[in-house]
Amino acid sequence: MPLARGRQFLAIPGPTNVPLRILQALDRPPMDFTSPEFADVAEEVQMGLRRVFKTEHDIFIWASTGHGAWEAAIANFYSPDEKVLICETGAFSEWWLEMAGLFGLDAEYLPGDWRMGIDPAALEARLRADTGHEIKGIGIVHNETSTGLCNDLAALRKAIDAAGHPALLMVDTISSLGSMDFRMDEWGCDVVVGGSQKGLMQHTGLGLLGVSPKALARAENATGPRRYWDIRRSLQMPFHMRNPGTAPAHFFYGLKEAIKFLEEETLDGVFARHARLAEAVRRAVAEWSKGGAIDFYVKNADRRSNSVTAVEITGPVDSDAFRFACRDDFNVMLGGGLLQLGGKLFRIGHLGDLNEPMVWGTLAAIEATLKRKGVPHGPGGVDAAIAYLAG
Amino acid sequence: MPLARGRQFLAIPGPTNVPLRILQALDRPPMDFTSPEFADVAEEVQMGLRRVFKTEHDIFIWASTGHGAWEAAIANFYSPDEKVLICETGAFSEWWLEMAGLFGLDAEYLPGDWRMGIDPAALEARLRADTGHEIKGIGIVHNETSTGLCNDLAALRKAIDAAGHPALLMVDTISSLGSMDFRMDEWGCDVVVGGSQKGLMQHTGLGLLGVSPKALARAENATGPRRYWDIRRSLQMPFHMRNPGTAPAHFFYGLKEAIKFLEEETLDGVFARHARLAEAVRRAVAEWSKGGAIDFYVKNADRRSNSVTAVEITGPVDSDAFRFACRDDFNVMLGGGLLQLGGKLFRIGHLGDLNEPMVWGTLAAIEATLKRKGVPHGPGGVDAAIAYLAG
Amino acid sequence: MPLARGRQFLAIPGPTNVPLRILQALDRPPMDFTSPEFADVAEEVQMGLRRVFKTEHDIFIWASTGHGAWEAAIANFYSPDEKVLICETGAFSEWWLEMAGLFGLDAEYLPGDWRMGIDPAALEARLRADTGHEIKGIGIVHNETSTGLCNDLAALRKAIDAAGHPALLMVDTISSLGSMDFRMDEWGCDVVVGGSQKGLMQHTGLGLLGVSPKALARAENATGPRRYWDIRRSLQMPFHMRNPGTAPAHFFYGLKEAIKFLEEETLDGVFARHARLAEAVRRAVAEWSKGGAIDFYVKNADRRSNSVTAVEITGPVDSDAFRFACRDDFNVMLGGGLLQLGGKLFRIGHLGDLNEPMVWGTLAAIEATLKRKGVPHGPGGVDAAIAYLAG
Amino acid sequence: MPLARGRQFLAIPGPTNVPLRILQALDRPPMDFTSPEFADVAEEVQMGLRRVFKTEHDIFIWASTGHGAWEAAIANFYSPDEKVLICETGAFSEWWLEMAGLFGLDAEYLPGDWRMGIDPAALEARLRADTGHEIKGIGIVHNETSTGLCNDLAALRKAIDAAGHPALLMVDTISSLGSMDFRMDEWGCDVVVGGSQKGLMQHTGLGLLGVSPKALARAENATGPRRYWDIRRSLQMPFHMRNPGTAPAHFFYGLKEAIKFLEEETLDGVFARHARLAEAVRRAVAEWSKGGAIDFYVKNADRRSNSVTAVEITGPVDSDAFRFACRDDFNVMLGGGLLQLGGKLFRIGHLGDLNEPMVWGTLAAIEATLKRKGVPHGPGGVDAAIAYLAG
Repeated sequence: MPLARGRQFLAIPGPTNVPLRILQALDRPPMDFTSPEFADVAEEVQMGLRRVFKTEHDIFIWASTGHGAWEAAIANFYSPDEKVLICETGAFSEWWLEMAGLFGLDAEYLPGDWRMGIDPAALEARLRADTGHEIKGIGIVHNETSTGLCNDLAALRKAIDAAGHPALLMVDTISSLGSMDFRMDEWGCDVVVGGSQKGLMQHTGLGLLGVSPKALARAENATGPRRYWDIRRSLQMPFHMRNPGTAPAHFFYGLKEAIKFLEEETLDGVFARHARLAEAVRRAVAEWSKGGAIDFYVKNADRRSNSVTAVEITGPVDSDAFRFACRDDFNVMLGGGLLQLGGKLFRIGHLGDLNEPMVWGTLAAIEATLKRKGVPHGPGGVDAAIAYLAG
Repeated sequence: MPLARGRQFLAIPGPTNVPLRILQALDRPPMDFTSPEFADVAEEVQMGLRRVFKTEHDIFIWASTGHGAWEAAIANFYSPDEKVLICETGAFSEWWLEMAGLFGLDAEYLPGDWRMGIDPAALEARLRADTGHEIKGIGIVHNETSTGLCNDLAALRKAIDAAGHPALLMVDTISSLGSMDFRMDEWGCDVVVGGSQKGLMQHTGLGLLGVSPKALARAENATGPRRYWDIRRSLQMPFHMRNPGTAPAHFFYGLKEAIKFLEEETLDGVFARHARLAEAVRRAVAEWSKGGAIDFYVKNADRRSNSVTAVEITGPVDSDAFRFACRDDFNVMLGGGLLQLGGKLFRIGHLGDLNEPMVWGTLAAIEATLKRKGVPHGPGGVDAAIAYLAG
Repeated sequence: MPLARGRQFLAIPGPTNVPLRILQALDRPPMDFTSPEFADVAEEVQMGLRRVFKTEHDIFIWASTGHGAWEAAIANFYSPDEKVLICETGAFSEWWLEMAGLFGLDAEYLPGDWRMGIDPAALEARLRADTGHEIKGIGIVHNETSTGLCNDLAALRKAIDAAGHPALLMVDTISSLGSMDFRMDEWGCDVVVGGSQKGLMQHTGLGLLGVSPKALARAENATGPRRYWDIRRSLQMPFHMRNPGTAPAHFFYGLKEAIKFLEEETLDGVFARHARLAEAVRRAVAEWSKGGAIDFYVKNADRRSNSVTAVEITGPVDSDAFRFACRDDFNVMLGGGLLQLGGKLFRIGHLGDLNEPMVWGTLAAIEATLKRKGVPHGPGGVDAAIAYLAG
Repeated sequence: MPLARGRQFLAIPGPTNVPLRILQALDRPPMDFTSPEFADVAEEVQMGLRRVFKTEHDIFIWASTGHGAWEAAIANFYSPDEKVLICETGAFSEWWLEMAGLFGLDAEYLPGDWRMGIDPAALEARLRADTGHEIKGIGIVHNETSTGLCNDLAALRKAIDAAGHPALLMVDTISSLGSMDFRMDEWGCDVVVGGSQKGLMQHTGLGLLGVSPKALARAENATGPRRYWDIRRSLQMPFHMRNPGTAPAHFFYGLKEAIKFLEEETLDGVFARHARLAEAVRRAVAEWSKGGAIDFYVKNADRRSNSVTAVEITGPVDSDAFRFACRDDFNVMLGGGLLQLGGKLFRIGHLGDLNEPMVWGTLAAIEATLKRKGVPHGPGGVDAAIAYLAG
């Protein structure tokens, strides 16, 4: 490994940039998680998360990764052989589909174009066809981290309503929550999967699950085995005791500070900042794309994500060689391609506690690596990002 | 809440006292968990944990609490309706038994006396009676945190061998690992459950599972649904990618430092220190017990734990009122009684990064609270602890 | 060095115990010390320090140790050959006297008994004899750290007033400020020396100087060379620019948090806590002193300090061997004897962010070391401290 | 103040960017500064600083700012009325000259052009004229922080030698040490002033002074008053007790880590990195300068500093309005003009733990501010910096 100097630019799509004050909130000696002090913090976090999820309902919290929250979404609400429909969006929809199958559900994939996003009409058509309402849950990745595509949840909700379908709407918001607009209650989301390490600016290690009353009712009757993820059991406990076993207390202090951090700026302010910085990234990519070897992976320009941009690279190096050069030469970390996209694209994460010079520094490192590696690209990418944010 | 001043004395049986250098190792900004740097750390941690577990086999690591590692122990190795035998020891054996049942196993409880520990003869007798070897796994809590009793694993292993029984030996070492002697391979343990927040001196949030080749073979054929906990899948990945989803990287840096911390002192040195400090606690309790209202919960003096001591209190206050007074008056946190022991005992945790004055300060706070609350007790508890450790 | 385990008990009379929240306030990356953000913090600190000093006048702050603030007290207010009277109290009065001489002042020592404290009558007599008011300044160590004796400043002020003497009253409050009552304006103090590392709970590295208008007037005309310590120059600058050169910004964030910490408890509450904990220490020493080899250094019981207790030890080991044993065996740090007291006494610091179990742990470590080293001592020292604080 | 989000880019010429590992070394609870542990650290730091200064002689360390180290350089080696020659370079030479005068020295200013640097011939001529060797010391600012000009010390030494003049050579290396080549012994420097907060990557609060045997000999006979800064006294103490009063221990742990950090990269590697990054900054400024309103302050291109670049701005905004916009809009902090340069230039600090994307982000923020404020400037500044560092 080359000797790294200077601050690392973490431009992967999560875990993401964490401000010092949140790191300090996380950095505390272990404490008595049964104390009234912790009970207060746990309640504050619960109430704050509801504001971030834009819901009046319960949020469940586990020591787990986001995959754990997915598993909680599968294990709590369905009995074996019940049908769920997972909408194809990319690597994360693939894995969620697979997980549903492993839990014995009849997991159907609604085909979709990874570069275009979920088609509301296709969803509506499939649901209309399900006249017997065999589909019990619909799984949608709000912001597909592997492709940088943000689906239009409001439109998808409308499609479900248009079909008059009663299935639970399950949404993975892992890379959108706290970075892009999400409205659990208004958009009729029943089961909402979140994680700690992206817009909430924590270490990796917490899974979150928002649950509507409609979903809760199903949880009472679902028959699959579960204990760690069982929300029925958690509901009987006060907020600070809902986690199975010892509470991962440091995360609660971190979340409390993160919620304060977000609300100081207002959620709308946070979303606007992410939108501006993402647009600057897109302006750069648009210039580079004029050289032939670089392009947006997502073709549907309206649905390009404000938290991550996937950039296709067609030579003369593969995307991993490109990323590693950027890392080794400039201490800038980019995300790679997942599954069949391995080696074909790199992903620029632009979420969390981010500002203009962090984005410019990242883009400049990419531009310098394009030069070093001889990747054909249009000039002026960084210039365009400067011009946009100066405007 | 009264205003707390001075350092909190965390005398609960976990999470436990963490030295600054481990806290600092944990306190780092998020990083790229797919990088070669993290791969190196993950491999170091894997190899170090094997030395701590005293095994040559794989240790699996999850973002979870210890309950998650229990669930991994249940979910990976058994198919529905298979029989497991859980040995009764206290609250944690109850919960493990319940979990096995919830996963559809035929979970049998081997009755045991919470104050005496598991009787090797009783275990041997039950296993001899299982002539058809229907019992596929035996679950033992090494150190029962709820009672402060450490079972004699070597003797229990001998009992299993004497019965010639092939069942997997599952051991919960959550509150013994890194504090008291444990030898996975020598004692023929097949599935070993551990957590981050006790002898390993981390925040809460990691579950660990040591797995023998014999257990691994069963995992191939077990049919229960699992994805998050599935070790088969993890085994196909390099060490730093074995966790489902994003790796909780900060914990790996913490663990690396913890292993170094333990090995500087040597594991035997760590165990000897815990034994000495625990004996000092016991000397104090022995004096207090002469007053009538205070006593050891564990009657089998040979099996009193070196990481936690449970103290029965029979009036004039219940154990929770006692604990809260100690907390509010002196900023010393004690553990409470669990399940049917609620209100009847308090538990003194004495594990992790602990030294003599920390123990004395804790004991003095208890003695002062005994005085304040008018709990009849023999005098000289702290004096006895001083005399012992001065010797 | 033996391998230290567990938290260090820092029972030296400064630097002292710092709570995590102050350590975290200190732990920040460097920042622009000319920014409005820092200007706000510097002003808050100035106003808060005035409340802690109980003054309406300016406090000057240097990157320096307490010795630097002493030097500022000498360099700013006197011209060469002017007379100052330093009251003998112990090692710190010796050093201050020497410093005054090195700066060319006519430094007179008012003899005093280190074990009894400054006699107000002797001070009054000396000042009455100075009919020509040649004495321009009187230097008093409020709390003599080397002996653990706190002089009665109100009585000494009365003595000066009774003599009708106009000299500046210079007071060293390094080990009293923020731990014991001190009232700059009410007690007519003109030049007040403080430091960061004791009651203000910071790292070592800041010298403080409170200055009355009367002292300020003298500063205008004093002719000695000075630049770093020159308060005239500082006065022309806004608060955040008063330090010569770059501001040591991290300390200002630490001080801001420390002032908040003190004011949450109220200064009176802080003083009462120190008084209680100091009395517990004295109860223990009183018991130990019954054995013959241990005694209070300060004979004037009314003037024993609430921030530090000096304990004389007359064998069979010298006080340094005793201290080092306590440090190496139990990770408890005690202060040693200074100047002619070297090897003859150890000092127990009991100031800063301190609570009962920290005191008990320290006392128990001392008691255990008394046993180990065979120092004759009365039994029951820790018991007495427990009984007192339980009452 | 606008709400700051994302990491602050600290592009002032000190205090500077500090890596996490050094911040963590600084972040420790107070400890016993008389302990053998601290003695070891203090000795390691002493020996390491000698390697950084490239000297075999003593380095003295104070709790002070860099101004304190200047004062130590003045107070220790000269008696009142002795002549010293300070070479004019900018704001810092002005202040040093003033300080010498305030200490009663006969302080002569060797006139120099702030934009060209000290002329070795002029120095030689002045020294040749001093046939009586009345000049006892020559003060040179190695790297003038206020202008971004690095004087050619080797050439200046040669000039002194050519004149055969025996005066002490005093050098201020505050903003060069640890960033640009400096060789105390080889270049015959007698008194070397340094500070903690620039190339040594610490908080502000330590002054350093390297002293040659020749200077030490003068210190024995200098008659000015001094105590805090007195190196004669320090020399009698072991390294960890050399600081007057309580040692600022946290800084020693920070310095130990900083020295390790520098030596991992090698000093030559550190200097080369600074040179590359500085050249990138200069490439950008060179492009901007084509627009008419922006220019290098330093006209002598060979002497432009590798730690700070001063940029003249001639409208339509003054340099402070420019800096504040850059700070408020982009969280990038630039340095301002000092003394008569106030409002006329901004300074880009590029030293400490710095890498390419940090530089690019800073330059992009400047370029965006040039656009926002309508400052005429040539395009392509950031592009040029990217192209240079990609090369």
